[in-house]
Amino acid sequence: MRSADGIETSDEMPIPERMKAWVLGDPDVLTLSEKPVPMPGRAEVLVRIDAVAICATDLEIIHYGSPALIQGGPPFNKDFTPGHEYMGTIAALGPGVDEYRIGERVTVEIHAGCGQCKRCRQGMYTACLNYGLNYGNVDKGHRANGFTTDGGFCEYAVNNINTLVSVPDDMSDEEATLVVTAGTSMYGLTELGGLVAGESVVVTGPGPIGLLAVAVAKALGAGPVILTGTRDARLEIGKKLGADYVINVRSEANTVDAIKRIIGEKGADYVIECAGTEDAVNEAIQMINRGGKICLAAFPHDPVTVDLPNMVRNNVYIYGIRGEGKSATHRAMGFMREKRFDASLIHTHTFALDDLPTALRYARERIEDAIKVVVKAQM
Amino acid sequence: MRSADGIETSDEMPIPERMKAWVLGDPDVLTLSEKPVPMPGRAEVLVRIDAVAICATDLEIIHYGSPALIQGGPPFNKDFTPGHEYMGTIAALGPGVDEYRIGERVTVEIHAGCGQCKRCRQGMYTACLNYGLNYGNVDKGHRANGFTTDGGFCEYAVNNINTLVSVPDDMSDEEATLVVTAGTSMYGLTELGGLVAGESVVVTGPGPIGLLAVAVAKALGAGPVILTGTRDARLEIGKKLGADYVINVRSEANTVDAIKRIIGEKGADYVIECAGTEDAVNEAIQMINRGGKICLAAFPHDPVTVDLPNMVRNNVYIYGIRGEGKSATHRAMGFMREKRFDASLIHTHTFALDDLPTALRYARERIEDAIKVVVKAQM
Amino acid sequence: MRSADGIETSDEMPIPERMKAWVLGDPDVLTLSEKPVPMPGRAEVLVRIDAVAICATDLEIIHYGSPALIQGGPPFNKDFTPGHEYMGTIAALGPGVDEYRIGERVTVEIHAGCGQCKRCRQGMYTACLNYGLNYGNVDKGHRANGFTTDGGFCEYAVNNINTLVSVPDDMSDEEATLVVTAGTSMYGLTELGGLVAGESVVVTGPGPIGLLAVAVAKALGAGPVILTGTRDARLEIGKKLGADYVINVRSEANTVDAIKRIIGEKGADYVIECAGTEDAVNEAIQMINRGGKICLAAFPHDPVTVDLPNMVRNNVYIYGIRGEGKSATHRAMGFMREKRFDASLIHTHTFALDDLPTALRYARERIEDAIKVVVKAQM
Amino acid sequence: MRSADGIETSDEMPIPERMKAWVLGDPDVLTLSEKPVPMPGRAEVLVRIDAVAICATDLEIIHYGSPALIQGGPPFNKDFTPGHEYMGTIAALGPGVDEYRIGERVTVEIHAGCGQCKRCRQGMYTACLNYGLNYGNVDKGHRANGFTTDGGFCEYAVNNINTLVSVPDDMSDEEATLVVTAGTSMYGLTELGGLVAGESVVVTGPGPIGLLAVAVAKALGAGPVILTGTRDARLEIGKKLGADYVINVRSEANTVDAIKRIIGEKGADYVIECAGTEDAVNEAIQMINRGGKICLAAFPHDPVTVDLPNMVRNNVYIYGIRGEGKSATHRAMGFMREKRFDASLIHTHTFALDDLPTALRYARERIEDAIKVVVKAQM
Repeated sequence: MRSADGIETSDEMPIPERMKAWVLGDPDVLTLSEKPVPMPGRAEVLVRIDAVAICATDLEIIHYGSPALIQGGPPFNKDFTPGHEYMGTIAALGPGVDEYRIGERVTVEIHAGCGQCKRCRQGMYTACLNYGLNYGNVDKGHRANGFTTDGGFCEYAVNNINTLVSVPDDMSDEEATLVVTAGTSMYGLTELGGLVAGESVVVTGPGPIGLLAVAVAKALGAGPVILTGTRDARLEIGKKLGADYVINVRSEANTVDAIKRIIGEKGADYVIECAGTEDAVNEAIQMINRGGKICLAAFPHDPVTVDLPNMVRNNVYIYGIRGEGKSATHRAMGFMREKRFDASLIHTHTFALDDLPTALRYARERIEDAIKVVVKAQM
Repeated sequence: MRSADGIETSDEMPIPERMKAWVLGDPDVLTLSEKPVPMPGRAEVLVRIDAVAICATDLEIIHYGSPALIQGGPPFNKDFTPGHEYMGTIAALGPGVDEYRIGERVTVEIHAGCGQCKRCRQGMYTACLNYGLNYGNVDKGHRANGFTTDGGFCEYAVNNINTLVSVPDDMSDEEATLVVTAGTSMYGLTELGGLVAGESVVVTGPGPIGLLAVAVAKALGAGPVILTGTRDARLEIGKKLGADYVINVRSEANTVDAIKRIIGEKGADYVIECAGTEDAVNEAIQMINRGGKICLAAFPHDPVTVDLPNMVRNNVYIYGIRGEGKSATHRAMGFMREKRFDASLIHTHTFALDDLPTALRYARERIEDAIKVVVKAQM
Repeated sequence: MRSADGIETSDEMPIPERMKAWVLGDPDVLTLSEKPVPMPGRAEVLVRIDAVAICATDLEIIHYGSPALIQGGPPFNKDFTPGHEYMGTIAALGPGVDEYRIGERVTVEIHAGCGQCKRCRQGMYTACLNYGLNYGNVDKGHRANGFTTDGGFCEYAVNNINTLVSVPDDMSDEEATLVVTAGTSMYGLTELGGLVAGESVVVTGPGPIGLLAVAVAKALGAGPVILTGTRDARLEIGKKLGADYVINVRSEANTVDAIKRIIGEKGADYVIECAGTEDAVNEAIQMINRGGKICLAAFPHDPVTVDLPNMVRNNVYIYGIRGEGKSATHRAMGFMREKRFDASLIHTHTFALDDLPTALRYARERIEDAIKVVVKAQM
Repeated sequence: MRSADGIETSDEMPIPERMKAWVLGDPDVLTLSEKPVPMPGRAEVLVRIDAVAICATDLEIIHYGSPALIQGGPPFNKDFTPGHEYMGTIAALGPGVDEYRIGERVTVEIHAGCGQCKRCRQGMYTACLNYGLNYGNVDKGHRANGFTTDGGFCEYAVNNINTLVSVPDDMSDEEATLVVTAGTSMYGLTELGGLVAGESVVVTGPGPIGLLAVAVAKALGAGPVILTGTRDARLEIGKKLGADYVINVRSEANTVDAIKRIIGEKGADYVIECAGTEDAVNEAIQMINRGGKICLAAFPHDPVTVDLPNMVRNNVYIYGIRGEGKSATHRAMGFMREKRFDASLIHTHTFALDDLPTALRYARERIEDAIKVVVKAQM
């Protein structure tokens, strides 16, 4: 049924007026509160949130505040709800929306660009030139869930249809929350050119993005795919996700030499750097071949010393990526739908939405080797 | 007339058996000597060298030795002839060559790739994976004139037809030597995507590549084009080559602020970094807009501290370029033939080939504000 | 001043409540009528229309009805205002718009895509998958001025800021109306790869798009640029716009041979087909070189016999383009602002808006060799 | 051991002076004859041929003569050996070759470009501008095995290392001969952009290229992948190779409608046309969505009537592809090595090299539903 303002709802998905929502007060202080359920506008839907994965960035935002909110003043005690890796079920359709139907399961990209700037018109909506300009008189339409707008640690959220990816029936809620992570890896590989079949790819750092970068690179046909890291348990998961070789850098005198013993002296075609350390960046420059490409999917907190002379002399290109642009989540889901890799291997724990503080503690302290911790509204 | 081995020569361009050639002895010691005139093979021509421009890299090679030669032992006293920015007249055609004719004027790219590696097959022959492998049992066919093979401070040189660009009748020898420099700038702009019409481009550093980067960016329709540097005389030449604005960084408290006052707070679409300093690299990262692209056409001698966090957060891509790949010299000549810019504005001095040491001193010490110093076999 | 609904207006540009507008009744019957002045929404501005150029497509729409309107029933007597190549002065800003200011002169692209479909997110908004879905319950936001929404043969129009291009002070209104035509040519060259400097380009058909394709190809550095056609007067204008050679196909036994005498037996690198005839399409396939690219910027009214075997055997790619996507108008304006070519050479006649029927007759019947006929609200 | 002329051989692979070779006399007349074993030059190896697949083009060449040979006069009775889909074992290395070793199994691309023309330098060596120029005084280095040079229906062949792809130990000779076919499909998908994960792909025509286009599209993550054809047995193989849907066009009133019932009214993102009929080409234009892309991997023998108006209005691009350029065989092998699809499903029959006429008859007459028929030197 369509309301007078064009919003379509269904009796099978009754929508309450208010919902539970975690709210950020002082640093690291989240309180379970209540908020009105928002309503979708043009090209938007209302999503009932079924599951949310916790990202390392969530921990930073909860501790330091959202970078975007900082621009507008102190970020804390602002009634802000964090959380950005969520999926759920469509509960209402904005005016004119017929691309989705009520009851359909979807997972959600973080970024809806403004749609007007030159980056958005290139599909680079995660680098929207109006990033963060979405409040008050300067609302340019940009949205980054859980960064610049309310996120998913609550029961309902409005999302632009640009940000939605359909979830197949046989995919669990938990796995569906991982599409954004896989989409980030896919975006990196997209910007490297995408045609990696038969090419050598080194992934440095077995965090969630690194592990799924292994999976996505392998799905795209790369070979050999080599994963480096310091924790054997993580490297083992990397093998299951498709790494042809894993290297524990603690047991090697020289990581670059170890890589070159596998793929030859000329070096790797591609490196996807997911460790975010000075050493990892410089090792990437040393292990890449002439004309090769490096993606920085992680970054150090501070400026670092980089071997630029070697980079330029060897005609190396470095791509710093932000988020999951160029519709990469759709391509990632294309492979996940076909079960080309099992992203749920990086999902380790599930808690109820009400237990979010515990879930965050597991993620932060890596309790019981936690990788991806998920909270669910309905357990 | 064709000889028995298929080489075509002409009475109008009689070829001597021996030629004058400058030879590198000890560091910084060049001696005018004699060498046999080489003969072209398949897909090669013999070029009578008419003019050679001096590049800063020549000065380094003469002082430190060629990097490639270093790999095979001490670089000095090896009978090596440097010089890589040369043009001349075709004096003989190798077997089967009919793309050019004897008497035709050509200018010469530095790099002939091996033609077999994956980079060469992508047109990235300046990043040939067999770079420098062109002697003895491991001759893969790669040639880099004046780097890994004999260069142009002599009277004749053999070149692969891949490396040749035809010179129009109304272009002087001196201007024709600058096509490689313009081609390097064009290669950088090519790798940045090429479609810069109406986009903002900042060029940092008014050396020869920077000045011609201004010219090429403007020819491609970029606007505004802004040139930064420390010497007003150079900046003035930049204006003549098409810079809409020039900024003397010595008279600005903050270069990035000065740039943003011109093009707005969101920053530049493209930066072509030709200064090769730590500050310039980091300022490029600060002045580029989200999703923007930076080309490093110069580089510091040592590793430097780089603001990678800012680069990654803003989805910035950095392209370290080597030389003049992807047939960029042909595109540069396309504009120079049409007199879209006057590259000869950066040519300041001409000497006879016999006066090479003087010419090198002018270039090294920037005597009389020397920018491009050219030596000519026939004055 | 901002109204309560967020719309900004200015006393210096007072906006009337009603305006003059030409309305399509029966086929070929236009009546000067009155309509309310529309008001801009989010990301939109109100443009006071100062000049409109007449395109051949306008003549078709007025005679056959707009294709998009046909989908929703008979196209005539629907209060529809045609006209799509217009420019003007910004008279009001929609809520939140600060990219433009009141009083600024702008020229307007035809297509505002829906912003949600995969084509729009690739910058291919002229091929929006929701093309024409902009009425009633299925308004997806797509707009094509003068095709699927009211156009410019009136005094005011609302436009998405995506569609605007700033006009420099020293460019006449008439010339500014030609940016869409130049943008179409630029879009074609963009899709062909954009890097045409030093490459051979043949343009077939000296209509407005063909003539400006010559200008844009030349501005991008192409050479030689060859224009073919049947009318010497048009070919002469092509020369002034940059054609290195023109060929009157009436005076040649074989156009393809004539082309190859100029550029060599291997054929042209690029062909931009603007004649829209069967012969022209097949000649393009015959004159293109192996691996070359053909852009179809015009098309025959009916299916035609095409030499596909030759096309496939020679690895030829054919790009059918619609309109002026990928922000090509901005790149075209980048060159026009720099006076790299004089688009106004194709502007031949100007009439008052009230004299639209006369203007259309001049355009239709090519009276006095009319090429681009412009109508102006204020003469 | 290296001979005086730099050729390396091994006692483990003794090379006879002469070999068996099938030679084309009159049309359709092949005679088993003898030829000297050729020796490899720079960047070449000698391959002992172990298996050769028969392509429909072989049948045409044997009947009509090789197109390239026709250029130089009547193609028959010229001592020409056809056959181009072969694999084998490296028996000797040309001077300087160290990329491969004697005894290594390799499969061979058809085309070695000249390496000098602009297409070769773009990786488009199958569209080499010197195609066929490889005899007498105009040898530009281009080679197309079994088209313009001797092919593989014999015991030994010399090949440029550019054309080699390593074969893994666990891949049969028969499967390895199919890499060129898979590479052709991969080249088509490469030119369509390569990023097809999650996108809809229709393949029309279940010949060898069509069937492997299904396999490659699916390996790259496309979905849904739909195969159309007239023979149910072939369509069943298509399903095994990854088609999500198959459509027997004989049982459908309207193929385009049947496609749209599956993927929606907006149409397919990509069509790979492998049927080579007028109807198939026009149906492709009708089923593609706005801005979609069509690859023509087959073609009618004669010019056909094509719905160009629809193609241009919908901004459709059509890519006529020739062979397996851009290193596509390496990417195809990347997937085959990982057993991402079983190319051997299209291999139906094997005969001894001596029984080539029988093998050709099976292929020509599709005896016992023959798809790919292979001949082997060693059974």
